[in-house]
Amino acid sequence: VPFSQQVESLSHESLIRRASSLVADSANTYLSQTTLALVDSLTQYSKALHTLIALQKRYMNSMGKITPAEEDSIWQVIIGQRVEVGDRLDECKRFEGNWMNAIHLCELAAEAAYSAGVEHASTTTRSNLQVAQSQVEQVRKLSLDAERKLAETKVEEIKRTAAFANAMERMTEDIPEAYLRED
Amino acid sequence: VPFSQQVESLSHESLIRRASSLVADSANTYLSQTTLALVDSLTQYSKALHTLIALQKRYMNSMGKITPAEEDSIWQVIIGQRVEVGDRLDECKRFEGNWMNAIHLCELAAEAAYSAGVEHASTTTRSNLQVAQSQVEQVRKLSLDAERKLAETKVEEIKRTAAFANAMERMTEDIPEAYLRED
Repeated sequence: VPFSQQVESLSHESLIRRASSLVADSANTYLSQTTLALVDSLTQYSKALHTLIALQKRYMNSMGKITPAEEDSIWQVIIGQRVEVGDRLDECKRFEGNWMNAIHLCELAAEAAYSAGVEHASTTTRSNLQVAQSQVEQVRKLSLDAERKLAETKVEEIKRTAAFANAMERMTEDIPEAYLRED
Repeated sequence: VPFSQQVESLSHESLIRRASSLVADSANTYLSQTTLALVDSLTQYSKALHTLIALQKRYMNSMGKITPAEEDSIWQVIIGQRVEVGDRLDECKRFEGNWMNAIHLCELAAEAAYSAGVEHASTTTRSNLQVAQSQVEQVRKLSLDAERKLAETKVEEIKRTAAFANAMERMTEDIPEAYLRED
């Protein structure tokens, strides 16, 4: 009896080990798919931010040098790009949700594999977790940089708009004087 | 550009959905393996407890009717059975650890599947969770019943041992009196 019992218990344990390996494998696949999606969407978001920054700068540099119609068409493009940035950010958030699920699943799968005695699956999963986290950290840093640059551009725009408005005011104040003087 | 971007984003999402289904599938397999192992080990534990209860009852009923050598051999069997019960309980605890991991993995996998848009995988996983939990609950109830019965047997044994010791004392007190009276 003890022998057959031991064989039976070994078989339970080997089935659990196998199933635990499968969970770790699929959690790793899920992590790599969600990491790819998140990295890609963060990259697209950064690109969209940089396009918006370039448009805002073009608008600033053209201030007072273009007709109101030209100004309006630049604004239409800027507004369109802001929508694009918002859509890209929504996508990032959606993929980030999936990615966080994948992170938690992998953490649990690594724990389960370890306690089921499948140490290699546990170790592989933990190292994949680290790689995924550092990959996402890198692209997230780039998108944060782009967000910071956009904020700087906006500050600059406010300053320039204020300076431009001042100049315009001075110009319109000057006009009647000059007009009067010439008159 | 918007069309190709949409196709790309669809492909990320479909890959995530597929990977999320795989995680749910493997988590379900892991849950069913660990549930089987836990149910089996709890059943074996209950059986071992019932064997121990039967041995203790046999010992109680034979109190004062058997030789010290026979008593000793019953005690050897009881001690062996107590070790068996302890081993079975250890096995239950080990499998319970795996099972708890499986429960958490399935809960997370169901959540991940739901948020990835694979609702059927999420629903299947949640219903499997309920089935597994009720299966384990049932056998756990049986093992708790067996534990309660063993505790009752022990109380009964203490009472009988005390009664037997009292009777023995009275017998040994009676002997000298009888001896004195006859003398």
